[in-house]
Amino acid sequence: MGNIRVGIVGLGRLGRIHAENIANHVPGSVLQASCSINPEDLAFAKESFNVSETYRTFEEMIESPNLDAVCIVSPSDFHPEHIRQAMDKGLHVFCEKPIGLDVADIKQTIDVIKAHPSQIFQLGFMRRYDESYQYAKKMVDEGQLGELTVIRCYGIDPSSGLEQFVKFAGASKSGGLFADMSIHDIDLVRWFTKKEVSRVWAMGKNAAYPALDQVNELETGAAMMQLTDQTMAILVAGRNAIHGYHVETELIGTKGMLRVAAQPEKNLVTVFDEHGAVRPMSEHFSERFKEAFINEMKEFIACIKECRQPEVSAFDGLQSTRVAIACQKSVETSQIIDVQYELHHS
Amino acid sequence: MGNIRVGIVGLGRLGRIHAENIANHVPGSVLQASCSINPEDLAFAKESFNVSETYRTFEEMIESPNLDAVCIVSPSDFHPEHIRQAMDKGLHVFCEKPIGLDVADIKQTIDVIKAHPSQIFQLGFMRRYDESYQYAKKMVDEGQLGELTVIRCYGIDPSSGLEQFVKFAGASKSGGLFADMSIHDIDLVRWFTKKEVSRVWAMGKNAAYPALDQVNELETGAAMMQLTDQTMAILVAGRNAIHGYHVETELIGTKGMLRVAAQPEKNLVTVFDEHGAVRPMSEHFSERFKEAFINEMKEFIACIKECRQPEVSAFDGLQSTRVAIACQKSVETSQIIDVQYELHHS
Amino acid sequence: MGNIRVGIVGLGRLGRIHAENIANHVPGSVLQASCSINPEDLAFAKESFNVSETYRTFEEMIESPNLDAVCIVSPSDFHPEHIRQAMDKGLHVFCEKPIGLDVADIKQTIDVIKAHPSQIFQLGFMRRYDESYQYAKKMVDEGQLGELTVIRCYGIDPSSGLEQFVKFAGASKSGGLFADMSIHDIDLVRWFTKKEVSRVWAMGKNAAYPALDQVNELETGAAMMQLTDQTMAILVAGRNAIHGYHVETELIGTKGMLRVAAQPEKNLVTVFDEHGAVRPMSEHFSERFKEAFINEMKEFIACIKECRQPEVSAFDGLQSTRVAIACQKSVETSQIIDVQYELHHS
Amino acid sequence: MGNIRVGIVGLGRLGRIHAENIANHVPGSVLQASCSINPEDLAFAKESFNVSETYRTFEEMIESPNLDAVCIVSPSDFHPEHIRQAMDKGLHVFCEKPIGLDVADIKQTIDVIKAHPSQIFQLGFMRRYDESYQYAKKMVDEGQLGELTVIRCYGIDPSSGLEQFVKFAGASKSGGLFADMSIHDIDLVRWFTKKEVSRVWAMGKNAAYPALDQVNELETGAAMMQLTDQTMAILVAGRNAIHGYHVETELIGTKGMLRVAAQPEKNLVTVFDEHGAVRPMSEHFSERFKEAFINEMKEFIACIKECRQPEVSAFDGLQSTRVAIACQKSVETSQIIDVQYELHHS
Repeated sequence: MGNIRVGIVGLGRLGRIHAENIANHVPGSVLQASCSINPEDLAFAKESFNVSETYRTFEEMIESPNLDAVCIVSPSDFHPEHIRQAMDKGLHVFCEKPIGLDVADIKQTIDVIKAHPSQIFQLGFMRRYDESYQYAKKMVDEGQLGELTVIRCYGIDPSSGLEQFVKFAGASKSGGLFADMSIHDIDLVRWFTKKEVSRVWAMGKNAAYPALDQVNELETGAAMMQLTDQTMAILVAGRNAIHGYHVETELIGTKGMLRVAAQPEKNLVTVFDEHGAVRPMSEHFSERFKEAFINEMKEFIACIKECRQPEVSAFDGLQSTRVAIACQKSVETSQIIDVQYELHHS
Repeated sequence: MGNIRVGIVGLGRLGRIHAENIANHVPGSVLQASCSINPEDLAFAKESFNVSETYRTFEEMIESPNLDAVCIVSPSDFHPEHIRQAMDKGLHVFCEKPIGLDVADIKQTIDVIKAHPSQIFQLGFMRRYDESYQYAKKMVDEGQLGELTVIRCYGIDPSSGLEQFVKFAGASKSGGLFADMSIHDIDLVRWFTKKEVSRVWAMGKNAAYPALDQVNELETGAAMMQLTDQTMAILVAGRNAIHGYHVETELIGTKGMLRVAAQPEKNLVTVFDEHGAVRPMSEHFSERFKEAFINEMKEFIACIKECRQPEVSAFDGLQSTRVAIACQKSVETSQIIDVQYELHHS
Repeated sequence: MGNIRVGIVGLGRLGRIHAENIANHVPGSVLQASCSINPEDLAFAKESFNVSETYRTFEEMIESPNLDAVCIVSPSDFHPEHIRQAMDKGLHVFCEKPIGLDVADIKQTIDVIKAHPSQIFQLGFMRRYDESYQYAKKMVDEGQLGELTVIRCYGIDPSSGLEQFVKFAGASKSGGLFADMSIHDIDLVRWFTKKEVSRVWAMGKNAAYPALDQVNELETGAAMMQLTDQTMAILVAGRNAIHGYHVETELIGTKGMLRVAAQPEKNLVTVFDEHGAVRPMSEHFSERFKEAFINEMKEFIACIKECRQPEVSAFDGLQSTRVAIACQKSVETSQIIDVQYELHHS
Repeated sequence: MGNIRVGIVGLGRLGRIHAENIANHVPGSVLQASCSINPEDLAFAKESFNVSETYRTFEEMIESPNLDAVCIVSPSDFHPEHIRQAMDKGLHVFCEKPIGLDVADIKQTIDVIKAHPSQIFQLGFMRRYDESYQYAKKMVDEGQLGELTVIRCYGIDPSSGLEQFVKFAGASKSGGLFADMSIHDIDLVRWFTKKEVSRVWAMGKNAAYPALDQVNELETGAAMMQLTDQTMAILVAGRNAIHGYHVETELIGTKGMLRVAAQPEKNLVTVFDEHGAVRPMSEHFSERFKEAFINEMKEFIACIKECRQPEVSAFDGLQSTRVAIACQKSVETSQIIDVQYELHHS
C-alpha cells in the first residue's frame, strides 16, 4: 500500500499540529489537502506543508478523488456531521475530541460509523498515546497497583491564556469547563478503570475573574464521581495554572499509588537559584503532548494500513461526552447527577 | 513562674509521645502525674519519665494539689467529660483531637471552657505546629497564592496497620473513616481558608478488605466539600498506603499552587537502585509529626506562662467534628449533606 | 533541492538508530545505501528501511552516483580514513564520535575537510541537540548562571552491559574508559565553558570486577581538570549504574547552579510503593537521547540544504580526543598531565 | 547520676547554638557556666539561658568546682590548648571542629586525651548525628550499596555571607577554603569508607570576587582524592551558593548509588509558581543541622553518664586536619600532594 493521503479540516492551533505531523512526522502519510474558511490558513498550509489541494468547504474537499482519509479539527459542533459525510464518502476518519456535544447527534454518528466497518475511525484522545500514560496503563493492567480505589485527574490550562478566554467567554459555546477541559480526564478515568461513571457532583469558583459568573463559565472547577464498582474519581479542571500546563493523573490502588506528571516537568533541567531548586514546567499542551500527537497519528495510519480499528472508539467519545454533560448539569443544579445511559449499550 | 506540672491521662501510643515530650523535650514543663487503667502503663511512666504520682482514674489525678495542667489522651468519647472536670478543678487543659464525637456534648464543654477564661485550653491539632504547614500558612496569609479556590487533603495511614484494624473493626466505635482520619484535614481546610464548610458528599470503597462493608467501616474514602465562599475542598482518607504515612495538602490559588508533602519524604536521602531514584517515605505519624507534637506542647506551656490563649480553640474542635459527622452521614445516605450550624455561632 | 540521499556505513546498535532516523524521522532525507561486512545487517536494512543499494565495502558505496552524503558509524579507528575518502568523493559527511583515536590522523583529516569547504561535515556530539542541554546552554549563554566556576559531568553506563564488557575487555581496543565513555562529557565541558582543558588528573577503581585491572580497563573512573581560565571540571565515568543510564551534567556559576538530568528520569511517572516514591530511570542511551539523535540528523540535512556548516566541527573532535588521551595517560602514570596543544591552533 | 554541669567557652553564632541546646534541648544537662571575652555575650547567656557563672577567661572557668564538662567553641587555634587544660582539670570535653590547625599541636593534645581515658572527649562532627547521614551510613555498613568506588561531597555556604567574608578575608587566618569548609566532608569520606586519604589534588577559582586571589583565599574550590584502596573522593567547597546552604554527599557503590541532600530541601513544601515547581532550600547550617547539633550533644551527655567514649575521636580530628592541610598545599603548589602519615599511627 502506498502513502495514505490525508485531507485536514481546520487549521487553527491544534489543526496545524496535526497538519505538521501528517506532513513531516508520520512515515507513510501525505498531507494531500487542507480545508479552511480562512484563506490565510490555506496559504500557510501550502507554503509550510506543500499541500497540493486546498478547499474552502469540507464538502468540496471530500469530493477530491485523491484522498484516503480525513483529519477533522473543525469546531466541536461540526464533528458529527463531518464524520458522517466522510464516512459516507468511503474515507477513513480521524476526529479530534470531543466526538460531539449532543448525545443524540453522537449516537446517530456512531450508527454511520458502524455501517462502514472497513473504514477506520479514531478519536483524538492522544493522552492514551503518551509514553508516560502508557507506562502507567501497563502497570495497572499488570495488576501492579492492585485494584484501583481512587483516580484523581487534574487538567489545568496555563493562566497565560486566561485573559483571552475571559474576553471571549460567552461569545462561543464551549460546553462549559468540564466539556471543554475534562473530556480527556473523563476518558482516562474510563480507560484506566474499565468502568463507567454512575454519579457526579461538580462545582466551581471564579476568583480571579468573578465576571465569569455572569457568562456561566468557570475559571476553576472540581468534580467527584462514583463509578459503577464504587471506585472514586476526582477531577479538577481550570484555566489558571500560573506555573504552566498542569495535567496530572493519580491512581490509588490496593497495592500502590502512581502519579503521571505529579510535576509536569518541561525537561530534565533543575535550576538552583534564589528561589530554591526549580524544575521548569511544561508550558502548553502542544509541548507536553508533542510526541503523543505524533504517536496517535502514527497509530491511525498504521490502522489503515493494517486494516484494524484503533483502541479509541466512537463509543469512548459518546461516554465521555455523557459524563461531561452530567458535570455541567451538576454545576447548574448544585445536585448530584446520575449519568444517563440507555439499557443495552454496546 | 516555675515549671508547669502536668498530669497526663492515657498512655497509649500517642499518650506516650506526649508524655515523653512533656518530660524531656519541653523546657519549663514537668510530667508530674500519669493516669491509666493499665498498671503496666503506669509502671512504664514511672520508669521512663520519672513520674512522681500515678493514678487509676482521672478523677483521682485531678485531686492532686501538685498539678497545674492536664494532658488528655483518653479515648475520644471521654474527652468532653475530662475537659469539664479539669476545668472545674482550675487546671489548664491540653486535649487530643477530636474534642468529642457528639455536637451537644461538645457545646456543653465549650460553655464550661468559656466559664474559665483565665485557664488555657488547647486542642491537639498538631499539624498547625509543623514547620512545613507553618511555611505554607505564612505564604497563604501573605497572599502569595492569591485567593484560594481548591484545597486538597490526603490522610492515608500506612497499610502496615490495616490488618490489625480489620481485625478489630466493629468492636470499637471509630466514628467512621472521616471522623477518625480526616479530622485533621478538616481543621486544615478551615485554618487555611478561614471559611466554614457548607456542603459535603462523601463515599468509600473497600477493595482490599471487602468484609469491612459489613461493619460499616471504610478502607478508602473521598469527600468533596463546598465552602461558604464557593471554595472547593477535596479529601481522601484511607488506611492502606503501601509506601508509608501519606499526609499531603495542596492549596490552589489564583496566583500559585503549593503542596505540603507531595511526597512525604522520610529524610533527605535519595537511593538509586534497580527500582530507579527512590525517596524513602515517612512511615508513621509519630515520625512525620515528631517535631510538631513537641512544638504544640511548647506552645501550650508558653500560653500558660504568658497568660494567653493558643490559636487552636475548642470552637475549632466543634466545627471539625460537625463536618466529620456530615461526611459520615453522606456515606450512609449517598447524598449531599448540608453541614448543620446554629445561627449566631461565635 | 530534492531529498538528500544518504549512505550509511555500520549497522550495529548505533548505526541502526541513525539508519532509522534517516529513513523515517528526518523529513527531506532518504536512506539510499547501506554498507556492512555483515550480510545480515544489509538484509535488515533492505527490509526495514527499504534501502535501494547495499555494499560490502565503504569504497564501493561511495562510488555510487546516487549519494549526496554519508553517515559514518564504522569502528572508531576507521573514522579518519572514511571521512577523507568521502570528502574526496565530494560527499557531505556525518561522522559518529570520536573523530579518531590518534591526534596526527585527526589533524590530517581536518586538513582534508578544510580543503572541501563547500561540503558539510558534522560530528556526532548529539547531546548538544538534546532539548534539556539546549535549555541549559541558553541559560549559560544568556549569563543566567553568571561566570562558570565548576562543571561536573557523569557518564555511567547501565550495569546491564557490564558483564558483556568484562567478557570481551582486552579483545578490542576501546581507548580506555575516558576515550570510550567521557568523550561526550569532554565536549560538553568545552561547549558550555568555551575554554580548553589545560591539565587533568584521572584515576579509577575496579571493585565489582577486579580482573579488569589485568586488561587495563576501568569499571569506574574519575578525572579532575583545570581549564585555561581556572574553571574546574569534574568527570565521573563508569560502566556500572544499577539504576540505568546515568548521564548528568552540573554547572556551577557565580549566579546559580543547574543540573541536567540530576535524576535521569525515564518519563513523568512516580510510583509510590513499598520502596518509597520511585522515579523510573532511563535505561539506555538510545532511550535517553532518542530525540537528540533525530535532531542532530535533522540539523545535518538542514545544513546541507542551507549550505552552512553545523556548530559541531572536526576541531571539536580533535580537542576532545586530546583530552581523553591525556586522561588515559594520567591513569597510566598516576600523574597530572598537561594537555598537549600546538601553538597557533585555529 | 545527676545533671551534667557544662561550661561553655565561645558564644558566637555556633557557641550560642550549643549553649541553647545544653540549656534547653538536652535532658540531663545544665548550662552551668559560660566564658567569653565579650561582656555582651556573657550578659546574653545569663539572660537567655540562666547561666549561674560567667567568666572572662577559660582558665578561670575551669577552676569552678561546679563543672563536670566543657564545651569548647573558641577560635580554632585555641582548641588544642583548651582541650589540654580541661583534660588536666578532670573535665569531660566536647570540642568544636577542627581539633586544631597544626599537626604537632594536635598530636600533643591526643597524648593528653589518652592520658585521661576515663574522661569523655568528643569532637563536633555533627553530621554523623544527622538522621539522613545515619540512614545512609546504615545502608553502607549493611552492604546495600556494595563496595564504594566514588564519594562526592559538596560543602557550599550561602552567598548571603560572601560579601562579609570578602571584607574580612586576609584579616584572620581561616586556614584556607578546605580547612575552613571541607573538614566535615573529609570526615565524611573517612567515616563512610573507613579508609584514609592517600593523595590529593586541589584547585580553586575566584570569579565573583577576583580580589580574593590577592589574600590567598578561594570563593570556590575542588579537590580530587585517592584513598588507600583506590576509592575516589571528589570535594567541592565554596562560599557562593545562591540558593542556600548546599551540603550534599554522594556515595557510588557497586550495587547502587545514594545521595544525601541532592537538593537540600528546607521543608516538605513545593511551590508551583511562575518559576516552575520550586522546592525551597535550607538557608544556613544552623537550619540544616539543627537536630544534628542537638543529637551530638545528647550523645556527649549520654557518653558521660554511661562511661563510654563516643564514635568521633580526637584521632578523627587529626586525620581530617592532615587532609585539609594537604589540600591547601596542593592549591598553593598546583601539584598532587601525598598526605603525610607517620608509620604506626594508632
